[in-house]
Amino acid sequence: MPEYVHGGDVYSYAARFGAAPVDLSANINPYGVPESVKQAMHDAIENCTQYPDPFCRAARQAISEVEGVAPDRIYCGSGAADVLDRLAAVLRPKTALLLAPTFAEYERTLTGADLRFHTLRADENFAVTEGILQNITSDLDAVYLCNPNNPTGRTIAPALLREIAARCAEVGVRLIVDECFLDFVSGGETLVPYLDTFPSLVLLRAYTKMYAVPGVRFGWCMTADAALIESLYCAGQPWNVSVIAQACAVACAWERDYAAQTAQRIAAERVYLTEGLTACGVTVFPGEANFLLFHTSDTDLQDKLARHGILVRDCSNYRGLTCGYYRTAVKTRNESEMLFAALDEIRKGRG
Amino acid sequence: MPEYVHGGDVYSYAARFGAAPVDLSANINPYGVPESVKQAMHDAIENCTQYPDPFCRAARQAISEVEGVAPDRIYCGSGAADVLDRLAAVLRPKTALLLAPTFAEYERTLTGADLRFHTLRADENFAVTEGILQNITSDLDAVYLCNPNNPTGRTIAPALLREIAARCAEVGVRLIVDECFLDFVSGGETLVPYLDTFPSLVLLRAYTKMYAVPGVRFGWCMTADAALIESLYCAGQPWNVSVIAQACAVACAWERDYAAQTAQRIAAERVYLTEGLTACGVTVFPGEANFLLFHTSDTDLQDKLARHGILVRDCSNYRGLTCGYYRTAVKTRNESEMLFAALDEIRKGRG
Repeated sequence: MPEYVHGGDVYSYAARFGAAPVDLSANINPYGVPESVKQAMHDAIENCTQYPDPFCRAARQAISEVEGVAPDRIYCGSGAADVLDRLAAVLRPKTALLLAPTFAEYERTLTGADLRFHTLRADENFAVTEGILQNITSDLDAVYLCNPNNPTGRTIAPALLREIAARCAEVGVRLIVDECFLDFVSGGETLVPYLDTFPSLVLLRAYTKMYAVPGVRFGWCMTADAALIESLYCAGQPWNVSVIAQACAVACAWERDYAAQTAQRIAAERVYLTEGLTACGVTVFPGEANFLLFHTSDTDLQDKLARHGILVRDCSNYRGLTCGYYRTAVKTRNESEMLFAALDEIRKGRG
Repeated sequence: MPEYVHGGDVYSYAARFGAAPVDLSANINPYGVPESVKQAMHDAIENCTQYPDPFCRAARQAISEVEGVAPDRIYCGSGAADVLDRLAAVLRPKTALLLAPTFAEYERTLTGADLRFHTLRADENFAVTEGILQNITSDLDAVYLCNPNNPTGRTIAPALLREIAARCAEVGVRLIVDECFLDFVSGGETLVPYLDTFPSLVLLRAYTKMYAVPGVRFGWCMTADAALIESLYCAGQPWNVSVIAQACAVACAWERDYAAQTAQRIAAERVYLTEGLTACGVTVFPGEANFLLFHTSDTDLQDKLARHGILVRDCSNYRGLTCGYYRTAVKTRNESEMLFAALDEIRKGRG
């Protein structure tokens, strides 16, 4: 089996330690799945004797009403990762610009492409700066941005993001912006209002993180480019989104209050986690999402924490990062305190 | 949205007629989902707060025990259609031989390939004959067979199938055999015992039809080609098989008695359906699966039956078939009689 490069591998952990870890390596809402969403999934099991709707009509309608985007501008897939696969299959960018570090799946889908990287700097707290504008040139086919970025948790300043979108439009480059973690950012600004202005803009979303349903597989993209939407349907099997995932999406769409409340609670826990981690002697980078990037001289910390029953994400395999970088999800007070206690044990040489 | 070419589109039917049809256009076990499978899916909803196991360890282990194939020779996907997509992405056959008519998804995944067709003949009841052997030449990259074939329901004679496998091995051609409907065939012979003999053989399976879970999305392939298995993991997102689908697969694997009982019941209903359809004046082709191909001079029958609340599959868009060919699932006595009654009404000009 190939190497698995992401967080959330609780299965390998269980095989190794014979128990379930406290999983801080996947950035999932710690308050769980809303009851309405669970109920919708239970109800949908009865409908699984039918093939899924290949056009996800009910899910697109619900998303349309909540996001204010016409249904025919929405394409649903089996998680944002499926949408990324299909975007790459359809767009086949020969040359693409990516952030470094950023979510590894963009690069995975772009096999064979000439990739350029806008490298984010630790001494700028991994902020995307105006310098990126000069990297957006007409010989590119696509720019992939992640807002907030994974694993840094930093958002791109709204004014700069609009400048980037305008620059991409000006030089004829497709812009894909991954907003999968944006609803965790208090006051986070989506580019949805600019879909009309920039028809080559594609926005990526998922309910995975906010509604704690990574096991279900639902994500979507939005664009004013009707031909692209049409092509995405043909870029793989017609039944990619399960009956249960479609029902789950409809239920998630109407749980906006849950998202807003979660964002507030996570913001408070993020402060607590930042302070606690700093007190533990690690360098925490400022983040605005439900995860934090930190650095320590201990390059074996993931393994040590695993032996304490805690999974964090070793970020040394992110392009642009090195050994000593780790990402932890922002979860509840209890989980943060377990992390602090384990770090304390490790620091005292008892880990 | 692109045109949908398959059966089972109950969603368009509901949009048009405002009701759910009797769906004979998708070939799903009419006796429904075993209770153990339903329960496994309900239980799995609680585990959806985690990402799916990218390596489907529990599902592969269960399939391994039931099929007698080592886990590392099994690749699981989000339905057989996902596995077909990945096979095409990895193998990239430049030249492939397909049956005509056959399941449309093989051709969809082979965009850009030079396709050749072994055309099955109505006057041979669409049987695959020895003539296919001379079409298997060393300039091919792949041969796709469907056993039993869809939409004809015919199996390939076991001795001929082994000859085909040997011929493919001899001339160095990859052979993909879709056995997704094989467990509906009483005494159906799988090629599993020949995986070692023919390392370039790939067998495709799904639990979709027998366990009535097309909405869940689970399928797999088996091959002795370890490098191919490895490549399939990298040919798309790592989380393609949902937590619920993996749990569903484990439960299905242990319901072999249910499959055997269903095959017996379907065999009896197939006789009843054949006789009744023949009495209705249509030409029924001999089939061994849970569906039957028939022909009538009425080229508008799908629409007429839809107005009677019954969906059948118009097969005129199958390569190698023309207007007047239809496929109906073999379901229960009650559903067959509804079909006969509707055909009778239509024949009397009251439809």
